[in-house]
Amino acid sequence: MSKQLDFFYFIGSTYTYLAVMRAEELARQAGVSLNWRPFSVRTLMREQENIPFSSKPLKLKYMWRDVERRAERHGLDWRDVPKYPIDAEERANRVATLAAMEGWCPQFTRAAYRTWFLEGQDPGEQAALAALLAELGKDPQSVIAAADETTVREQYLAETDTARQLGLFGSPTFVCGSELFWGDDRLEDALAWCLAH
Amino acid sequence: MSKQLDFFYFIGSTYTYLAVMRAEELARQAGVSLNWRPFSVRTLMREQENIPFSSKPLKLKYMWRDVERRAERHGLDWRDVPKYPIDAEERANRVATLAAMEGWCPQFTRAAYRTWFLEGQDPGEQAALAALLAELGKDPQSVIAAADETTVREQYLAETDTARQLGLFGSPTFVCGSELFWGDDRLEDALAWCLAH
Repeated sequence: MSKQLDFFYFIGSTYTYLAVMRAEELARQAGVSLNWRPFSVRTLMREQENIPFSSKPLKLKYMWRDVERRAERHGLDWRDVPKYPIDAEERANRVATLAAMEGWCPQFTRAAYRTWFLEGQDPGEQAALAALLAELGKDPQSVIAAADETTVREQYLAETDTARQLGLFGSPTFVCGSELFWGDDRLEDALAWCLAH
Repeated sequence: MSKQLDFFYFIGSTYTYLAVMRAEELARQAGVSLNWRPFSVRTLMREQENIPFSSKPLKLKYMWRDVERRAERHGLDWRDVPKYPIDAEERANRVATLAAMEGWCPQFTRAAYRTWFLEGQDPGEQAALAALLAELGKDPQSVIAAADETTVREQYLAETDTARQLGLFGSPTFVCGSELFWGDDRLEDALAWCLAH
């Protein structure tokens, strides 16, 4: 059985763009199976009073410049500083939860980040979300309706609670056993750990 | 003339251990000249209300585990989670400032981090500081006295103000022109940027 690495993330986290675009290929090269697990990092960060940017303009400015430089370093597309924050109702994250239940989570998440970072739209808004679902060959109306229902909402809450129990405090976080690796810049460390243990 | 990279740091920052032990050799390999610039990140973080760990036990616990893993990854020594915070009077940082003025800053800073991380002592306390200065062949009494005088205090304040003007918010920060690279894990990015620009 191949090694497993859990990839906990939230659509709305900035550095997560880099991980979403890089993780699958790096995991494939390492021979590691990646489990995409959307969760509400926003809920956990509010609980923990962990507010990294909103009152810290220097860190915010630095963060965007660093994401831009890191995107360039990894050969990823970059357009401009996108709108922030997004997905007020966590609809895109609930669609990602549904997609994880149905097996199309990586494609959806990458498309959501393209919508956000490269097209400058909020993938949590109905029109943008419908357009990206249609491009993926999904029926937007039925997917969005399903993401509003109890089954998906409960699964999203359950994944968030799993993250809470694991001690997560940010997105992305890679989890191998009880080892946490926080940040896109720890993806390589996480894969190396996963292979060695 | 060789490329220059400014290395702003504070003895008391945790991840700075990794940078202090790695930076000189990596800069040498890259052919980049490294300027060691101690400054009071504590002052700037208080001004910015940027308190990353004191009320965030999950982040604190993760940080130490991550520093330990990263030390292992880089082949650096590790003993145990050291006491934290240290250098209440910023005496070790003022000695580092004097050392920077006199040309023995890298050796002193590495010794201070060994005292802290590997011997479990606070290099800001007089006895530990005197012992490490003696090991470096310095006269502890005269060095500690000089670090208490106006000239060094003003230089430390001036370097802190330079860091403030550059928009720094953490330690270590590598600065090349107007580009900031925050964190030991951006050292390689900083050197690459420095060589390319």
